[in-house]
Amino acid sequence: MPLTITAHEILDDAIRLTWSDGRESLFHHVWLRDNCPDSRHRETWERIDDVLSFDPETRPTEAALSSNGDISITWNDGHRSCFARDWLRRHCYSEPARLEHRPMPTTWAGGPGATPPRLTHDAIMETDAGLLSFLEILRDQGCCVVSGMPDERKAGEALAQRIAYLRETNFGVDFTVVSKPNPNNNAYTALELPAHTDLANREMPPGVQFLHCLVSDAPGGESILVDGFHAALLLREENPDAFDLLTSTPFDYRFHDTEWDVRWRAPVIGLDADGALREIRYNNALRAPLNVAPDLVKPTYQALRAFVAILRDPSNELHFRLGAGEMLVFHNRRVLHGRAAFDPNGGARELHGCYVDIDEMMSRIRVLGGDNLLA
Amino acid sequence: MPLTITAHEILDDAIRLTWSDGRESLFHHVWLRDNCPDSRHRETWERIDDVLSFDPETRPTEAALSSNGDISITWNDGHRSCFARDWLRRHCYSEPARLEHRPMPTTWAGGPGATPPRLTHDAIMETDAGLLSFLEILRDQGCCVVSGMPDERKAGEALAQRIAYLRETNFGVDFTVVSKPNPNNNAYTALELPAHTDLANREMPPGVQFLHCLVSDAPGGESILVDGFHAALLLREENPDAFDLLTSTPFDYRFHDTEWDVRWRAPVIGLDADGALREIRYNNALRAPLNVAPDLVKPTYQALRAFVAILRDPSNELHFRLGAGEMLVFHNRRVLHGRAAFDPNGGARELHGCYVDIDEMMSRIRVLGGDNLLA
Repeated sequence: MPLTITAHEILDDAIRLTWSDGRESLFHHVWLRDNCPDSRHRETWERIDDVLSFDPETRPTEAALSSNGDISITWNDGHRSCFARDWLRRHCYSEPARLEHRPMPTTWAGGPGATPPRLTHDAIMETDAGLLSFLEILRDQGCCVVSGMPDERKAGEALAQRIAYLRETNFGVDFTVVSKPNPNNNAYTALELPAHTDLANREMPPGVQFLHCLVSDAPGGESILVDGFHAALLLREENPDAFDLLTSTPFDYRFHDTEWDVRWRAPVIGLDADGALREIRYNNALRAPLNVAPDLVKPTYQALRAFVAILRDPSNELHFRLGAGEMLVFHNRRVLHGRAAFDPNGGARELHGCYVDIDEMMSRIRVLGGDNLLA
Repeated sequence: MPLTITAHEILDDAIRLTWSDGRESLFHHVWLRDNCPDSRHRETWERIDDVLSFDPETRPTEAALSSNGDISITWNDGHRSCFARDWLRRHCYSEPARLEHRPMPTTWAGGPGATPPRLTHDAIMETDAGLLSFLEILRDQGCCVVSGMPDERKAGEALAQRIAYLRETNFGVDFTVVSKPNPNNNAYTALELPAHTDLANREMPPGVQFLHCLVSDAPGGESILVDGFHAALLLREENPDAFDLLTSTPFDYRFHDTEWDVRWRAPVIGLDADGALREIRYNNALRAPLNVAPDLVKPTYQALRAFVAILRDPSNELHFRLGAGEMLVFHNRRVLHGRAAFDPNGGARELHGCYVDIDEMMSRIRVLGGDNLLA
C-alpha cells in the first residue's frame, strides 16, 4: 500500500510532514524552494535554476494536500510548487531515512572450508536478472567465481562489458598475467603475491577486477582473497587508535617503469563523507617510503603492522584453486587478492584480466532495477 | 654542488643527519629498516618484504659514511643496509622538506582584459619540451588555449593522446557538443551553461578536458572560465565557516537517462590528506536534492550561496570567444567552464571533446622530466 501524508504543518523554517507509517519528515523552506520541480529542464531532467535564483528567506504562505495526495505550496512571492509525495518520501533526510540509505556490505571471514560465491557464465550472460544477481553479489560480498567460461581470450571482457566499457590503465585495456622475462611488476613473476589491492598508486584504483583463468597447469599459484572491510572492522574493534591512524594518515604508493610514473597518496582505510567504509588501499609492492610528520612515524608503523597482521591471519583468508575455465571477479577496492608462488617450469599458468569501475557497476544495478527512471 | 652529509648521530628511535646546507633529517630506525634497499625486487623495483618481515624494535649498532658519501648501517640482528645520500635527501620527511614538496598551483582572478595562456598545436605536437610546457601550464594554472589546430575531428584526441589514453565516460571516448533534438544533457541544448565542472556525479570526474572548436558561426556561445581554487581561497578568507562546511558536507550529484544512472556524493571543495585543495566539484545541472542532517541544511545552503556568488562574480571570470581551429584545454576538477547561450538558427556551433585523467597527466610530466628513473 503506498504511503500517504497524514499531516502537514508549516513551522518557522521548515514544513513537517507525517506519513501513514508514522515517520516524520522535516523539509526546510529553502530546500523545498531549491527543489521546486520547475527548476529543472523538461527534457534533460537537469537543474536550470541555481541557489542564487531565489531569495533564501522565501517562505510558504500555504501548504495543501491535493486530491491525489501530493502537496502543493504557495510561496510569499506568489510562486507555486507541487511536490509528488513519492518523491518527497524518497528524498526525506530525517536520521532514520538517511540510515536506511546507507550501503550495508555483508562482510565475511575466511578460514578452512570457506568458499567464494559461485555463478555460471551462462546465467550472467543470458538474462538481465542473472546479471543483476551477479552485480548484487559483487556489491554486497565483494567477490564471485564464475564457472563455465568459454575457452576464449575475450570471454572475460565480454562478460565485463555486460556492465559497461572497461577501465583502461597503464597495463592496457586488458592484460595477461603470466611469468615474463624482464617483468615491470611482481604479478609478472612467479613469486608469491601476498593479498593486496591492485593499482593502489592511482587516485582511483580500478573498481571491479576480472581474472579469467585460461591455463592452470603450473604447480602452486592457489588464489587467496581477504575481505578488507571485515579486516578494517576487526581493527576498529581491537585497536581503535590504529584504525583512526589508518583512516587519516596518507601512505604514498608508486608504480614506475621506463614509460610511467604514477603516484598517489591516501590513507590505507578510506572513509566516505558519512564516515562509512569506502575503500581499502593496500599494496605492499607499491608502497613508497612513508612521508608524514616525524611524530607520526612510529605510531603509523604500529598501526599498519596491526592491520597487516589481521590481513595475514589465515582465519580471514579464503583459499582456493582457480581452474581453467573459471573467472575470479572481485571488488578491487575492498577485497584483497593474492596467490601462492608457482613453479613456471612445472606447467603453464595464464590469467587474462580487465577492470570495470564502481560507478559503472552501480549504474548498471540501478538501471537493471529500474531506479534510473525515478527522478 | 651535490649536498653531502656533514654529521650523523644515532638517537633512541631515529638517526639524525645534518646536511651541507644546514638541514637536519630525522630517519626513524623502523623507517630505515622498512626501506632497506634489499627489501625490493631487483627488476621490478617493487617491494617484496612487508612490515611484518622485521622486528620493529630492531636498532642500528653502527652508522658510518662510506667513501662516496652514502651511509651504511649495521643492525643489532646483523643485517646491513646501505642508503644512497641522494635517495635519503629526496625522502626526508622533516617539516621543511614536506612543505617543499607540496603542489603550489598559481591561482588567478579574471575580469576585463584577462586572457588564458596560449600555445600552438605544433609546439605541443612536435617536441617533448613543448608537450612538457603545456602540461606544466595545465598543472599550475589549470587552463590553456591551443591555436592552429588542424581542421580535423580527430585533431584534439591526437593531441590529448600525446599524454596518454583517453578517459571513457557514459558520453563516450569522445563527444560532440552541438544543440541536439531530445538532449539528455544541458550541454546538448543552446542554453547558457553557467560555469561548472563536468561529471561531478562521478566518483572521480575526468581530469583534463579538451574542447576542440570545429565550427563557431552561431551568434553567442562565448566561453567562460573560473579558477575554482582561487574562488575557494577567497571563500576561506571571507567566510571560513562556509569554507569548512563546503569541505566537509557531501552534496549528491546525479546524471540519469534511459541507459545510465551515475551518482556520487562528495563535498564541493575537496581537500587532500594534507589539507591542501584537491578538487572543486560543482555542477548545478547535476546537483541532486541535499541529503544531510537536518541541522546542517540551512547553513549548507548559506555556504553554497556564498561560494556560488564568488564563482559568478565577473571579476573572477575569464571571458573569450573560442574560434574555429582553437582548442580549450582545462583541469576539469579545478577550473569551472561555461558558455553564454547561443542562437542555433544563426549558424552552426560544434565542439569536439575528450578527457585525460590527472594520474596520466602527472605521470607524463614526471617521465618527460626524467623523474620516473629515480627510485
